[in-house]
Amino acid sequence: MDSKIIQPRTLKGFADVLPTAGQYRRRILRVIEDTFSSFGFDPIQTPNVEYAEILKGKGGGDNDKQMFEFQDAGGRDVALRFDLTVPLARFVAQYESRLAMPLRAYNIGYVFRGDRPQKGRYREFLQCDADIVGDTDLAADAEILTIAQTALSRMGFGEFVIRVNNRRMVNGLLADLNLGDRITPVLRALDKIDKIGANGVSAELAEADVDSRAVDRILAVIASRAHDNDATFAAVAGLMNNAESEAGLEDMRRILDLVEASGGDRNQVRFDPSIVRGLDYYTGMVYEISFLEAPEVGSIGGGGRYDNLTGLYTRSRFPGVGGTIGVTRLMAALESLGRLDSAARMRPLVVVTRGNSGDMVTDARVAAAVRATELFDVDLYPGAVKHGAQMKYADGRKAMFVLTVDQGGMVSIKEMESGDRTASTVEQLPEVLGKLAGVRP
Amino acid sequence: MDSKIIQPRTLKGFADVLPTAGQYRRRILRVIEDTFSSFGFDPIQTPNVEYAEILKGKGGGDNDKQMFEFQDAGGRDVALRFDLTVPLARFVAQYESRLAMPLRAYNIGYVFRGDRPQKGRYREFLQCDADIVGDTDLAADAEILTIAQTALSRMGFGEFVIRVNNRRMVNGLLADLNLGDRITPVLRALDKIDKIGANGVSAELAEADVDSRAVDRILAVIASRAHDNDATFAAVAGLMNNAESEAGLEDMRRILDLVEASGGDRNQVRFDPSIVRGLDYYTGMVYEISFLEAPEVGSIGGGGRYDNLTGLYTRSRFPGVGGTIGVTRLMAALESLGRLDSAARMRPLVVVTRGNSGDMVTDARVAAAVRATELFDVDLYPGAVKHGAQMKYADGRKAMFVLTVDQGGMVSIKEMESGDRTASTVEQLPEVLGKLAGVRP
Repeated sequence: MDSKIIQPRTLKGFADVLPTAGQYRRRILRVIEDTFSSFGFDPIQTPNVEYAEILKGKGGGDNDKQMFEFQDAGGRDVALRFDLTVPLARFVAQYESRLAMPLRAYNIGYVFRGDRPQKGRYREFLQCDADIVGDTDLAADAEILTIAQTALSRMGFGEFVIRVNNRRMVNGLLADLNLGDRITPVLRALDKIDKIGANGVSAELAEADVDSRAVDRILAVIASRAHDNDATFAAVAGLMNNAESEAGLEDMRRILDLVEASGGDRNQVRFDPSIVRGLDYYTGMVYEISFLEAPEVGSIGGGGRYDNLTGLYTRSRFPGVGGTIGVTRLMAALESLGRLDSAARMRPLVVVTRGNSGDMVTDARVAAAVRATELFDVDLYPGAVKHGAQMKYADGRKAMFVLTVDQGGMVSIKEMESGDRTASTVEQLPEVLGKLAGVRP
Repeated sequence: MDSKIIQPRTLKGFADVLPTAGQYRRRILRVIEDTFSSFGFDPIQTPNVEYAEILKGKGGGDNDKQMFEFQDAGGRDVALRFDLTVPLARFVAQYESRLAMPLRAYNIGYVFRGDRPQKGRYREFLQCDADIVGDTDLAADAEILTIAQTALSRMGFGEFVIRVNNRRMVNGLLADLNLGDRITPVLRALDKIDKIGANGVSAELAEADVDSRAVDRILAVIASRAHDNDATFAAVAGLMNNAESEAGLEDMRRILDLVEASGGDRNQVRFDPSIVRGLDYYTGMVYEISFLEAPEVGSIGGGGRYDNLTGLYTRSRFPGVGGTIGVTRLMAALESLGRLDSAARMRPLVVVTRGNSGDMVTDARVAAAVRATELFDVDLYPGAVKHGAQMKYADGRKAMFVLTVDQGGMVSIKEMESGDRTASTVEQLPEVLGKLAGVRP
């Protein structure tokens, strides 16, 4: 190999997005942004790089180990953000005097984790977070679920379920079981239930010195999850006998009622007592979104209520609730289902060929006239190569129409699907194309 | 200060985007994406982090010094990308067998440069690149200019000018002057003309051992830039007497004709022989975009033709032409002009207050009904606090309407600008609001 050639490649876990997948990604992001906006959320942005100290917060968790941390040219300890929630807490604390509270904000950006790359898991991935900060009201919790549900329904990619639980319910149970300092390992074990099953969780709990009666009660609560929320509520209620758990259950009920009042489908939002989320900062509702057709890629979103997160950066108290949709994970799911194969432009494509008019200025004028209708994306072929090569290109691009201007200035329209041809003057072209496409100019 | 509180702050040169600015940014990005799409461009993405070796290419330039480079946990030499053009070259080489050529691709993402932060200059900034790869035809060069012009015109933020030149013309001139190996310092000096003036350039050229007759000719060419393109062409043509420069001039003329044929305003696209761009990889057209009202922030975009860039990563030849719009720079310009002060939602905002209906489920249902019209963004206040506090919030958020549901289920509509009040049933609400807002449900 010539030593002058650098092998073109990306880092493991860092993926490119190619054009067809990019069109899907664009549609997904537009649905998400428009949905967030329709609930009154404002876009914010925080940097990809922050002081490591800020991102680590209390530190000591798994996130620290996975963080891309380095020194910048000025010798500062910096890191790439590993989520958008910690930067939001910093953001709220930093601008507390300038932000209207309660804050409704969304943040779309990449996060970075030095995780072992595997199916659907990347080291750089795109997250879309929406958060309501500054209130403890359950209407905010419900809204976060409704937003996720609305966005995923609008995408129409397939069936999904949002599984919801409440940390208060879990905490009440664990307090009742006198687990003391073993609560974190218990939460971590529970978080793996879908991967390692009840036996696996049971083994991990035994290893964490949780006595067998407590293990049995925890597993009984998990086993009570049903497809029907009322059945789950009834089963779980029978297993709880402390005020905190009951308050957590009551919160859950209220949240699900509100989701329904906001037009949500209660079957897509399911009470599931096995959902705990591994992160320490959650204090109330927790949820995870699964894409039913591609369970192997794991959850495509999740979140919950965190009432103490900003406490690391300010003395003011800003309770919050929020969640994320993981676009990279969702794209991986769609790819593994073979759904990213066909073109997905938001408008039909028209290709204007070059060379037959004898003058590229004429071709450019025709392309501009069609583009001005705002009904089509218009691609002026950038080179007067053989007509056959241009037609092949148009076919590969899944163009709806190919236009060829002749020396007399008449435009030949070829409908690519049927192969039919129509002729038009330049003046009538927008109307003729609009009719052929079944849209109005 | 309590040692437990971490001071919330960002790194120098890394900026947050707050909600109101975020709304403007969203509009800007939408115009850019929709414009790129309307010219048949597909979205692609490349990672923020790549092998340092890939990003450095031949290396040795100023970009290397400004690169955020570090070792990842696996000991690999990696770096944050400093532009989107080098990653595009790597991308084209890596996927050459899978990409339809000519490729029309756009890439929107952050780039990172350890530059000295100053007005309008950040260490992390958002770029929107569009490129046509795989053809040398001038129609592609013209299209890149037309796209930039269309996007900036649609934004409607104020007057801008796109100043264009051609490296062939410059190269011909410099070859004619027998500058030998001093061409790079001469280009760097010329690139500073707007900052240091003709005297400054003259001094730098003398320092680079360029003889005074050559300096005079270079300055004469620069001085020939006029507001009228025909005048500039006439003046420059008189100063050139070699084939390469004349071919470059002829290319320029052709490109400007095509821009005009595509509906562009020739006065916004100006031939300016002083534009050279500092980067080595340009081989033909070069251009820069200035926002006339805020010259102090520098150029808000630019680009050009690079016919040899992919040569670092593949033996196949992929000539290309492309350019960028710098959104962070544009936002900085708008901010310094005081244009980011008022709210800029794409749809009017409706706030539904809480607490008067006696039931948050009722309030949620009203919010959902209005949101379903897709005419308004709807913000359900997340907490049954005092009505006055909710009204103050709605005012701060620049809501168009505030809705309050009473215990009988009637909805009181307050128009925030006039203070007028109207009552409606929930069923009639979408129609009543649509009429008041002057839009149809």
